[in-house]
Amino acid sequence: MNQLVDHKALAHSHPLPALKAGTAVPVSVSFGDGIGPEIMQASLKVLLAAGANIAIEPVEIGERVYRRGHSAGIGPEAWESLRRTKIFYKAPITTPQGGGFKSLNVTIRKSLGLFANVRPVRAFAPFVATKHPGMDVVIVRENEEDLYAGIEHRQTDEVYQCLKIVSRPGCERIVRYAFEHARANGRRKVACFTKDNIMKLTDGLFHTVFDEVGAEYPDIEKQHWIVDIGAARLAADPGRFDVIVTPNLYGDIVSDIAAEIAGSVGLAPSANVGQHGAMFEAIHGSAPALAGQDAANPSGLLLAGVMMLLHIGQRQAAERLHNAWLKTIEDGIHTFDIFKEGSSRQKVGTSAFADAVIARL
Amino acid sequence: MNQLVDHKALAHSHPLPALKAGTAVPVSVSFGDGIGPEIMQASLKVLLAAGANIAIEPVEIGERVYRRGHSAGIGPEAWESLRRTKIFYKAPITTPQGGGFKSLNVTIRKSLGLFANVRPVRAFAPFVATKHPGMDVVIVRENEEDLYAGIEHRQTDEVYQCLKIVSRPGCERIVRYAFEHARANGRRKVACFTKDNIMKLTDGLFHTVFDEVGAEYPDIEKQHWIVDIGAARLAADPGRFDVIVTPNLYGDIVSDIAAEIAGSVGLAPSANVGQHGAMFEAIHGSAPALAGQDAANPSGLLLAGVMMLLHIGQRQAAERLHNAWLKTIEDGIHTFDIFKEGSSRQKVGTSAFADAVIARL
Ligand SMILES: CC(C)[C@H](C(=O)O)[C@@H](O)C(=O)O
Ligand SMILES: CC(C)[C@H](C(=O)O)[C@@H](O)C(=O)O
Repeated sequence: MNQLVDHKALAHSHPLPALKAGTAVPVSVSFGDGIGPEIMQASLKVLLAAGANIAIEPVEIGERVYRRGHSAGIGPEAWESLRRTKIFYKAPITTPQGGGFKSLNVTIRKSLGLFANVRPVRAFAPFVATKHPGMDVVIVRENEEDLYAGIEHRQTDEVYQCLKIVSRPGCERIVRYAFEHARANGRRKVACFTKDNIMKLTDGLFHTVFDEVGAEYPDIEKQHWIVDIGAARLAADPGRFDVIVTPNLYGDIVSDIAAEIAGSVGLAPSANVGQHGAMFEAIHGSAPALAGQDAANPSGLLLAGVMMLLHIGQRQAAERLHNAWLKTIEDGIHTFDIFKEGSSRQKVGTSAFADAVIARL
Repeated sequence: MNQLVDHKALAHSHPLPALKAGTAVPVSVSFGDGIGPEIMQASLKVLLAAGANIAIEPVEIGERVYRRGHSAGIGPEAWESLRRTKIFYKAPITTPQGGGFKSLNVTIRKSLGLFANVRPVRAFAPFVATKHPGMDVVIVRENEEDLYAGIEHRQTDEVYQCLKIVSRPGCERIVRYAFEHARANGRRKVACFTKDNIMKLTDGLFHTVFDEVGAEYPDIEKQHWIVDIGAARLAADPGRFDVIVTPNLYGDIVSDIAAEIAGSVGLAPSANVGQHGAMFEAIHGSAPALAGQDAANPSGLLLAGVMMLLHIGQRQAAERLHNAWLKTIEDGIHTFDIFKEGSSRQKVGTSAFADAVIARL
């Protein structure tokens, strides 16, 4: 139950800035919008109590920055910090409604070259209710290409177009990352999801590269699924999957599906990893309606913090934190989103949940 | 349990060729590849026994036609038949591997203007095992636009592109179809799934049109979901959804998910409907590995036949067939794919299943 998922499989090809042992690692931290500030504060408190040796650099991104006229919700100071620390711990943000606003997530992923979006999803039955108690899957989502390139235009008054882009280097690095991840974490199977019966060139390239690169990993079992039926099998019987590698948009959809059927999107962390940096975040959004109530579940962000600690080589703190979190959940101390009536269960708010984790460190 | 789903909600705007009462309706029928011939023969036998008043016109499409050099797997005789009868009952086909072959399904949908792909999905618990006994949802999938336009090219040696196209008329007709379908079938909610936080123009247009057209239906409850979280909620808790309207690719994915978690993709029918014709098929593929064994489940195609009978105004035969099919399933007479050991259950092959339905007409 306490096996950690180490997403940084390719340590040699993704070098971190050389660290002196004992030196605090500078980390850019944004507190975000909506429930962001509450869950970030709770998460940082737990990380620090667990012995994380980090030097927090607060950066401002999100709604207020959009409103100040930065079209992607991020200004020059934040960029400077991210480019220097190369480690970003990010709370969810709110993008204002209306035209002219670019996705901050996509902008950061592309600007920093964070090509791999790693999303481990596990069921925590019987502690968190799920219909799929055995599931334990890692979705490795391509994070820079596909329709997310953001190239859209109005062709005529009534016709709009969006360009999907897939490149060979893009496919190669994500597919290789998935296989290396599998190997480094003792996982035995990698499944690839594409729709290459329709998109024979773009998705076809992803599939071809999967076959080519996969041939270098004879120890790993390989499967390919057309995304519609792959997603359907995942939703009905997730236990049959181990690592899934897939283009950006399919990865977006199947990771939310996996997280929700495992118990809640509120529990799932993610690491956005590139050669020169990494960003760690929950997969859920900023839930403005829930903001300011000390009610939100900090678990997704907290577990993203575990992934970050592993990434910066602080395994001991990562393990302490992860085990204490697990014990908290096992002890039935739950935020409202996963709370179910039951003899030993207790419904708590964001900060009480954080304190309960700290008490179990 | 025996409420039929009538997909032909907009009868007035999708006129059928005027029929004399009692005249057999000409229907183009293809027997397909893989398990296609077995399940089509079984389905036709049941339809005719149920009193379907149709005149079968066999057309050849699929693998052999591809190999004869027709790039979309369909030749001039088949086109002539489809254009004349305007009603196509289609078994699954196999597209040969390799370049140069166009999707037959997409070609037919676009050439005949079959803009709405209607996919009713219901659970048949406790007779068919499912974790979601209450589900009863209709997915109304846009069927001509999106990435399915099939415009792909190689930009450089290493970069491929695919064009996603969304038009206002395309959005309007599918969204209106969904609302009319809901109203005509006593359904109270329509949910729209798009990814317009990323694709603000293309998916944004679909969402805008949903809001605009939806305003004309004050009696119907409207919801919009970003597709990732919408698909996740559908996979975890399908009972909360009623009608879902969504662009082509998302519809492809979520309809397979819905069908699989309801019990099996093998049970789900679909109607591809346009102003001047309609095509009825199962949502599953030709399963070549299962071919020739008299083992496949004909239910998806059979229920597509029910949708076809409703479409051509033969409600009595449709109801008879539907009720007999349901009784067969309730009596525990199951093909291998849905068979579970149990006191009163019996595992049968394709033709024995068809005979069991006929015995219950
Ligand atoms: C907020 C949005 C841009 C983002 C995405 O689509 O990638 C989110 O859904 C995610 O999965 O991280
Ligand atoms: C066979 C394939 C082209 C088709 C599609 O993608 O539409 C199928 O998956 C479907 O859902 O009908």
